[in-house]
Order: sequence, then C-alpha cells, then structure tokens
Amino acid sequence: MLSIIGTRRDCGIHGEAEFRFLAEGAASGSIPDYQLSSWLMAAVLNPLSIEETALLTMAMADSGERLNLADLPKPRVDKHSTGGVGDKTTIALLPLLASCGLTMVKMSGAGLGITGGTVDKLQSIPGFRVDLSPNEMMAQTKRIGLAITGQTPKLAPADKALYALRDVTGTVKSVPLIASSILSKKLAGGAETVVIDLKVGCGGFMKTIEEARELADAMLAVAKICGLNLRIAMTDMESPLGYAAGNALEIREAISFLQGSVENRFSELCHQLAGFTLQAVGKASTVSEGALMAKDAVKSGRAYEKATEWFSAQGADLSKCLDSLPIAPIQKEAFWEGTPGIVSRIRADLIGQAVLDLGGGRKQKGDSINYSVGVVLTIEPGSQVSRGQHIATIHANSDNGAQIASDAVQSAIQIGEPLNTGPIIELI
Amino acid sequence: MLSIIGTRRDCGIHGEAEFRFLAEGAASGSIPDYQLSSWLMAAVLNPLSIEETALLTMAMADSGERLNLADLPKPRVDKHSTGGVGDKTTIALLPLLASCGLTMVKMSGAGLGITGGTVDKLQSIPGFRVDLSPNEMMAQTKRIGLAITGQTPKLAPADKALYALRDVTGTVKSVPLIASSILSKKLAGGAETVVIDLKVGCGGFMKTIEEARELADAMLAVAKICGLNLRIAMTDMESPLGYAAGNALEIREAISFLQGSVENRFSELCHQLAGFTLQAVGKASTVSEGALMAKDAVKSGRAYEKATEWFSAQGADLSKCLDSLPIAPIQKEAFWEGTPGIVSRIRADLIGQAVLDLGGGRKQKGDSINYSVGVVLTIEPGSQVSRGQHIATIHANSDNGAQIASDAVQSAIQIGEPLNTGPIIELI
Repeated sequence: MLSIIGTRRDCGIHGEAEFRFLAEGAASGSIPDYQLSSWLMAAVLNPLSIEETALLTMAMADSGERLNLADLPKPRVDKHSTGGVGDKTTIALLPLLASCGLTMVKMSGAGLGITGGTVDKLQSIPGFRVDLSPNEMMAQTKRIGLAITGQTPKLAPADKALYALRDVTGTVKSVPLIASSILSKKLAGGAETVVIDLKVGCGGFMKTIEEARELADAMLAVAKICGLNLRIAMTDMESPLGYAAGNALEIREAISFLQGSVENRFSELCHQLAGFTLQAVGKASTVSEGALMAKDAVKSGRAYEKATEWFSAQGADLSKCLDSLPIAPIQKEAFWEGTPGIVSRIRADLIGQAVLDLGGGRKQKGDSINYSVGVVLTIEPGSQVSRGQHIATIHANSDNGAQIASDAVQSAIQIGEPLNTGPIIELI
Repeated sequence: MLSIIGTRRDCGIHGEAEFRFLAEGAASGSIPDYQLSSWLMAAVLNPLSIEETALLTMAMADSGERLNLADLPKPRVDKHSTGGVGDKTTIALLPLLASCGLTMVKMSGAGLGITGGTVDKLQSIPGFRVDLSPNEMMAQTKRIGLAITGQTPKLAPADKALYALRDVTGTVKSVPLIASSILSKKLAGGAETVVIDLKVGCGGFMKTIEEARELADAMLAVAKICGLNLRIAMTDMESPLGYAAGNALEIREAISFLQGSVENRFSELCHQLAGFTLQAVGKASTVSEGALMAKDAVKSGRAYEKATEWFSAQGADLSKCLDSLPIAPIQKEAFWEGTPGIVSRIRADLIGQAVLDLGGGRKQKGDSINYSVGVVLTIEPGSQVSRGQHIATIHANSDNGAQIASDAVQSAIQIGEPLNTGPIIELI
C-alpha cells in the first residue's frame, strides 16, 4: 500500500493490479483507513487519468457481487439520478419505460441531507417493500419488466468503504473519484444501458454546468472503456423539480403524472428522459420520437397499468395509494409577499433545507424520516406571481415548523429574467 | 478538521489556531488518524510556507511538556544528528563540549533501520542509565554540565503521533513536515542553541546535497521565526563515519577518540563540529579556533575527565568500560578481493544493512538489539587498498552471519576518484 500511495503522490501511473489490491483492501478492511485516506488525498491532488479511472471502476465493481441479468429480456436499463430536490423521476419513469417494453432494474440508496432518496419516497407508501432479495428482484423483473430495491451492501463494497471515508476526509471533490463511484455501482448492477440524470445547480451535487460537463465527459469516457452504454442528461436543479418536495407528497405527484394529470417541468423531464432512453436502446430513432411514445404510454393508460402491476408485485395497492398515503397534521398556505414579476428561480437548496427542517429528510445517516411533511409549490420558474398570490402549501407537524418553512419558501423565490425554464440543459 | 483539510487541499493558508487545533488533536488522539493522514498528504502535495511551518513547529512544541532550563548555566546547547551509519559523534561531543564550559542537554531517540540510535549505543555499556527523570537530568546537568536521556513521550507528543502516521502513509517526504518535526522537539527541549548534523548521502536521511540544502534552508528560516539559535553542519554520509559500525564497537571508538587515539574522518568531524558549536555560542571567534580548542580539550585529558564524570553520574565506570563492553563470539577478518586502487566510497547503506542483518539494529520498532555485533573497518574513503589487504573485522554471532557481512563489506567498497574524503560538506 505504501508503494501505491507513493506512486500517486509522485504522479505515477497505477496499473490494474494496484487498483484490484486497493479495491479488495478497501472492501475487506485489510488496508487501514489512514492509508486509504492518504491515497485518496493524493488522488484528489494528482487526479487519476481516464484509463486509471476505468481500472478503478472495474476493480470496485468486482469487489463484491455482480448481478447477472442474462435471464432477463433485453434491453436492460438502469436509470440513475445524482439526486436533487423534488426529484421523483425514477418512480414515474420505471413503469413508464417498462410499459414501453424495456427491462428496468434499479437499486437505489437512501437519501441524505437535502437530497431525497427514491427508496425513502417509496417507503412512504403503505405496504411497499423495498427489501427484495436478489432472487425476488430477478423473478419480478422477469415477470413484469421492472423492480426496485434498496442498495445491497454486497454491491461494490469497495466503493461503499471509500465513499464513507471520502465524506470525512475532505476528498469528495474529485471528478475521477466521483465518476468511478457512480459507475462502479452501475457496472455491478448488470444493466447494459445506463441513463444518468446529472443534476446541475444549487440543489444538485454539481453546482455549475462546467463542473457537471467535466464529470459527464469523464463518465462517458470511462463507460466506453468499461463497455457500458452510458447516456447522460444534464438537467436543471437550480429550482426543485415539479411542485412537490417531501416523500409522500412526491409520490402523489408521480402518481398524478402516471394518470396524465401533471403538466410542469417534472412531466416535461419525464417525457424527455423517457424519449432519450428509448432512443438510447434503439426503440426510437430520435429523442422527440421517443418522447411522443412516452406521452402516448401515459395517455393510453399503459404506464399507469404497469405501475399498478409494479406496486402490487412489491406489496402495495396503487388504486388505494392516494387515499392511504400519510398526511401531515398541519397544512399552511403561503402567499407571495415580494415584488410581483416572473419567477426566475426557486432556490432548490433552500426548499430542500426547508423540507429537511420539517423532518422530511436525514441530517445524519440513520435519522428517521417523517414521510408526510414537505412543500407543494404552485409555481415554477417562468411563472408570473403577483402580491398575495398562493405560492405553496406547507405540510408540517407544528405551526412553528410550518411558519419557518413558509418563510423559507418566500426567500427561495427569486424574481427576474428566467435563464432556463425548461428542465433539460443538455442530452449527451 | 474537514475545513482544515479543505484549506490545505485547496492551497489556502493555515493560521495559528488551525495548527494548535491540529497539534492538540494529534497529541490527544481526538482527531482520527484518517483525517490526519488526509491532511498530511495534502500538506505533502501543497507544501506549508515557512511561516506556516514555524506555526506548526511551535504548536507541536506546545503540545506537551516544554523543558525549562533557566536554572542551568548558559550557553545551553543541544546537539542533534539526523542519523547515519557509524555516527557516534554525540557520545564524543557531549563530554568534549561540556569540558569546554558548555551546558549540554540531550534527549535522544532509539534507532530504526540502518540508522543507529545514540541511546542504543549507550545501552551497550554495562550500568549506563538512559532513563533519567527530568529532575535527575536537571540536577546532573547543573552539577557536571551534561546529561543524556531517552526521549520522553511527553515531549512534543503531536510530533510523535504525526511522525508515526507519516511513516505508514507515504507522507514522510516533505521538507516543511521534516523541518517542523525536528525543530518542534528541539524547541520543547529548551536549549537556546541547537547544532544539527545533517547527514547527506546513501546512508543518511537526505540522499542528495540539493535536498539537504533545501531542508537546511527551511530549518534555518523556521528557527529564526521561533527564536532558536540554529546552526547546521551538512556532513557526508555516503560512507560510514569512522571505522566502527555497531553499538558497543562504536562506544569503543568514541572512548578511543576521547583518549586522543583516533585519527580519521570521525575525529575530524568531532573537532570541526565542536569548533562550529564553540563559535556558535561565542566561545570561539572562528570555527578553526574552536576546533583547536576542542583538540586541546582532548589532548589535555579534560574531555576524557568530563566523560568519566558523565559515565559515573549515569551509573557506569569509564575506566572499566573498554574491558566490560560485550564482545561477539566470532571475529572474522575480511581482506580486499577487488581491484587495487583508492577507495572512493564505502557505501554506508550497505554497511548499515550488514550491521542490521548481524542483529545490531532494529528492522521493526520494538526489536531487540545485539549490542556486540558490527563491522570495524580499517579503511576510509581516500585509503589505498591492494588485493589481500585487511579491510575489516566482522563481529558476529555465527559464521554464516559473519560471511554474509563480509561479502557485504566487499561489495560496499568502491574504487575510484574520491569526491569528498573530508567529513564536512558545508557549515551553515
């Protein structure tokens, strides 16, 4: 390990054997944390090349179990989001794309901080199981074309160990390390095609378009070496996605979308991402053709039908879902108090923090979540607002909490010329 | 700590409070190793400025006890060597300089690898105590002008913790970190004047004159900020110092020097370093005047007399020492088998390794040492050797070990134009 650290420190080049040693040592715990963190800092300051990043990615993917999807029909697709505020896209896209004939296999992590986790959102649904065993997941996917389950610790355990360490050693900020962390899990997950929704903005993991593009380029180059059909959508996270932020509230919006009754930036993103995915697997010749197919799948009820099958397979009843989701004791309406004008941005970080403060997210790993709380906006970037106009409903546990969240929503709304009202920045 | 790591990673500048937090956290163990090592690697790749190095040095010196030497007569001097093969200089210089009226206070560490430790060498002397308490050390120094003791863990504990971590995280190679490590202990040791013998060459800590000069410049600049009267002698460690390498064997050579019966690169270094020190504290106006004073102290017997007092104060009898030092069971004579010529270098690293393999040093911390074994050369760089000439006596525990060491000595000797036969490279 000392020689590996020295190579990185002195700007040398690592070979495959070194990455395998590193990944296996991180996964098994045989390399002490203080050596891993010294290497990590050296890797932040002397970044890995694309070839090295690919070798690290493959070594981390091989550090645990790799799912074998060979029994499932093609095309097999994994849809991943880097996380944001109000991002319920996965819950809508999985049944939508499965209804278009794609096999959707998805493992999803828990949320932390202002970023909600898809698994958390699904857990707000009474009865919905997110603890499928690998066998259950395979059987269900074979039968109905989709399944979602919580991340198993057996998948890319080296990434799990390194990521936990990076979090506490100031070594998160590194494009090659981020790229290999994301892709190692995708590679181990077994799908040939992976669509990544890379969120950009104050509420996303990447804050600027420049750094997001750098990460996207690195991931695409690494995926090519690893033999992964990777597509990346850079999408806006300056403002929350859609109206709802908060676990059960987002489930409501996702279901409404599948019922064909949502028309906002969230529904537009779903259509675009679905079209992008259908084009990526050759089911559509262009993204817009794919988007039309997606719209049709919603309009015809096929997407909702698939979602009904999906919920049923994982223990929940979609037809009763909207009536059975938890409801917060307090609903407080918020009205615009600022200058009238066009909404340029609704700061996603502030909305995310408000939901977190209401109890709808985790400040620390292991925190419990209040599924019912959150914010439902009635406006989006590009909306016209006048003084006294209804802008949001706050779902809270206490009057005090509702007031704080209401104030946060007021201060999150910015008036001016909207730069980018559409949800898509770039499809790569 | 994450903010301190981030500052270093992003090439920011640390302030005093940050270094105090770091040093106290390292000393108390409240900062986890993985965070310290991440910071250390960032500090290796984004090196500390001189001002930062001085702040770290002072913070580490303050992380434990600081000796107060106010009760001892001036000038109070600490002589330090960065360590090498055959380096018994401290044992000769302490009584020599004390006999010239200097107060010599010395804490010394144990040896590791090919670098022998002064404390180990002294422990080969029957009865010699190296575990003086601070009070005993003070009282003895006040009475006879010198004392030596093993390093207490209470002195600069932050340095102790960081050094142990650097050793196993590939973060040793950093001039500012090395400078602060050496100087923090000297600062805590309390002497106003510190003379450092900086060994340069294949058997020393610094391998090239360029890197040694860089370290020397950094230490001088840092010492100035810390208010330390620091002098640095860069001396040759391409070849062993003097004839003997091995604990008891080196004690014999040091005693012989004090008796006035050694004339080689070791005795020359002692005279020069003594002269340099006497000039540093104003007892001599030039180094050569000081060197003459040192020679006279040896010739007159004053240095030996002081050594007798010293040995007696620490539990040993100098007059019986040569007869009571341990002797290895096997003495094997080695004769030159190579081409005749002038010795250009006797590779100190190979001689050091031979002594280590004989059992005379520690391969791992905590290893026990065989005090009697080692190598006594009869030649030096600049010596003429002919085929079959006696070049060394190997002191060993087994015939096999003696043969291996003898072969090592043969291969260590290089014939050619000697570049630097004198022991001094530069006095700064």
